[in-house]
Formats: sequence, structure tokens, C-alpha cells
Amino acid sequence: MSLKLYYDLLSQPSRALYIYLQVCKIPFEKCPVALRKGEHLSEEFKKDISRFQKVPVIKDGGFTLAESIAILRYLSREKQFSNEWYPKDSKLQAQVDEYLEWQHNNIRTFGTLYFRTKWIQPLLTGEPPNAKKVATYEKHLAECLSSMEELFLKDKPFIAGDKATAADIWAACEIEQPRITGFDPVAGRPVLSKWLNTVRKTFSPYYEEAHLILNKLVAKANAETK
Amino acid sequence: MSLKLYYDLLSQPSRALYIYLQVCKIPFEKCPVALRKGEHLSEEFKKDISRFQKVPVIKDGGFTLAESIAILRYLSREKQFSNEWYPKDSKLQAQVDEYLEWQHNNIRTFGTLYFRTKWIQPLLTGEPPNAKKVATYEKHLAECLSSMEELFLKDKPFIAGDKATAADIWAACEIEQPRITGFDPVAGRPVLSKWLNTVRKTFSPYYEEAHLILNKLVAKANAETK
Repeated sequence: MSLKLYYDLLSQPSRALYIYLQVCKIPFEKCPVALRKGEHLSEEFKKDISRFQKVPVIKDGGFTLAESIAILRYLSREKQFSNEWYPKDSKLQAQVDEYLEWQHNNIRTFGTLYFRTKWIQPLLTGEPPNAKKVATYEKHLAECLSSMEELFLKDKPFIAGDKATAADIWAACEIEQPRITGFDPVAGRPVLSKWLNTVRKTFSPYYEEAHLILNKLVAKANAETK
Repeated sequence: MSLKLYYDLLSQPSRALYIYLQVCKIPFEKCPVALRKGEHLSEEFKKDISRFQKVPVIKDGGFTLAESIAILRYLSREKQFSNEWYPKDSKLQAQVDEYLEWQHNNIRTFGTLYFRTKWIQPLLTGEPPNAKKVATYEKHLAECLSSMEELFLKDKPFIAGDKATAADIWAACEIEQPRITGFDPVAGRPVLSKWLNTVRKTFSPYYEEAHLILNKLVAKANAETK
């Protein structure tokens, strides 16, 4: 098999690509990378897999590519499959792209900062999280979630219109992440809540498979706060 | 003319698109938006131009699109022009995309945070900048500039190889921005310095035209620090 995906299911864009490849029926070899063990930080990983030292990364024959959204677009050109999830129609594709580009400095940035500060740093240091920073990032994260409803889901069931696309997969994988800390991204947001449930169902069973570890951590967080 | 570009030449992605449209000889109507006057924040702008209330935005007939990189890709499909700046070759295009996606949470994020904290906030509030924050963002910005050299320019003259592409335009426009504060992004970075000069020449005279106001502000900042 020529296509290899290097991923960790606790990385949002890794999960998105993992789901995408499967719903598109693109054959690939699973190459898990344990971020928690720092496997991506080794000199070997840098030399043999990716100079970026991050996941996801693909190797397609001799071609290496990082950045999940660049990978999504490359696969849409290179692999033979139905394009219903990354539409060929130019305007529709542009709307998917508009979301995917918007996401970086919104839900991706603030979801990640919140998650790192509240969950990863305490795990690494054994110290309680910086409450002031957590509160600041939570405020920004909440604004991003409201923007998602307001800018993308106000008058249509999916981000790019009447049909689910890759934009919904990438968005949902970001939104699931802070749940690991006990945060509920859809509380008080009926539009987002309805959309998230529909996305989960649309990409079943791959969606659940990709979120299996995450959902165990969520259950643990929820049990601890009870 | 059916294509309208809404832009402010003090916005990095606005400059990138402004240059790109001109080097590609795509006819467009110039619709400047004065961010400093808050023109993008009006209810009119939100209703008639873009719900995102940011620039750049295009209107192509009845179709509105935000996010400069989504716009770049849309134009590459929709408009008839030579594609040398956004290559049709799939692997080359993937490398351009890899940079454009990487950029968001690196040079774009930290260049913007540095610029806002050191220049925009003092301008708006009349207060001196928060020195601790400026120092933190400057450190991150410096790391991003080193990463640009290390990850993208170590063994090739341009980001995607031997030829300049849209990735170089977008990158250069980001790197120019903090110069307004008196910061020199290429000091002690011979690789980046050589590359930036080549990009400026490659996209002349449109590059200079797009950076005219910026360069006046840079001259002012440099005169003040002497």
C-alpha cells in the first residue's frame, strides 16, 4: 500500500484525516505516533518522517506532506473516489475552503490553548492549571463557538449548505477536543448541538472509532467532576 | 467588471491578494476599506459586503468569499490566467498549500500579536505597550522566522522549490508587517534576507505599490528610533 498516514487520535486534525480517508474509501496504512511519549520529537522522526515533527503527515510513495488541510486537497486531486465530501463544484469548494481557512485562528487556536492550559500542562508539570489563563481562553473559545453558529450554521444544516462536507469533519474534531477537560462545547447552544449530533451520525462508524479514546477521557473527566 | 476586491493595504493578506491579482493580470475593481476608521465594523459592511467583517473579501458577480487563501484557490479555478504562481502540478500545489496552511498558526499569529501589542494598541489607547507581552511575542516571532528559514528555505531559493509562487507572496507580506514597529525581521538571517529581496524584485512593480504606505510607516519608525 503506497499511502501511509502518521497520526495520533488525540490530535484533532489527525482524527479528521483518519475519518476522511475512511469515509472516502481511500486505502491507507495506519501508522500511529504516540505524541504523549514524544515520538514525534525524535531525530529519527524528523529525518525519516517529517521535518515539521508534528502529526498528521502522509507519505504517498516517495512524497511527504504535512498540514491536514493541504493533505485533504492533495488527496482530492490524487486519489480516485467520490468527491461528495470535498465538492468539485468551484463555489461549493470555495465555501468549504473558507471555513477551513477561518478555523485556524479561531476554534483551532483557542480550543488548543484552552486544552493545553487546562489539561496538558497540569499533566506534564503536576501543577494545577493557571486559572486566569484558563478563564481567558475559555472566554475566547466560547466566542468562537458562538461565531460558528452565527457565521456558518445560522440558516443551513451544514457549514457549506445542505450537505455535510470535510469542513464539518474538521470542525467537529476541533469542537470535541475540549470535552476532555470536562468542558461542554454545546451547552446552551442548540444549533451547534443539533449540528454536532448530525455530523457524528453522518460519519458513523468511523467518527466513533476515531473518538473512542477521546470519549473514554471525557467519561473520566465527567465522573471526576460529579 | 464583475470581480471586486475589498482590501486595506495595511492588512497582510489584503496586500498578498492585491499583488496576486495584478501579477496574474486578473481584472478587478479596487474597493479600499479603511480599517483604521472601522469601516469594516459597520452594520452596512456586515449586511452588504461580508458577515465576517474583515478584509480581504471578494465579490465575483453575486458570489461573496472571505479568507485570502480560499480566495486564491477560487481564483485559480475560476479565472483564465497563467497558473505559474499557483501551480497546477499536484505535488507542487500541495507544497504551496503546505506552507499556506502552516503559516496561520506561526508567522501570521505571532507577527499579528506582536504588531497589535507593540503598535496598534498604543495607537488606540495612548498608553505605552505592555513590555512583557511585547517581549513574549517577539520571542515567538523570532522562532517563526527561524522556522521559515529552517523548514522552507534551507536548500531551495523559494518556498516551493526553484520558482516563486503564491506561498512566497503571502509569506513576504506577513514578514513585512512588523517592520512598521521598527523591528527588522531579516537582521541576522541572511537566508531570509536574500529570499525577501528576491521576492520583492520578482513581483515588482506591484509589490512596491502594495507596500507604499507600509514603507512610509517603516521610514517613520526608523527615523524615530535614530
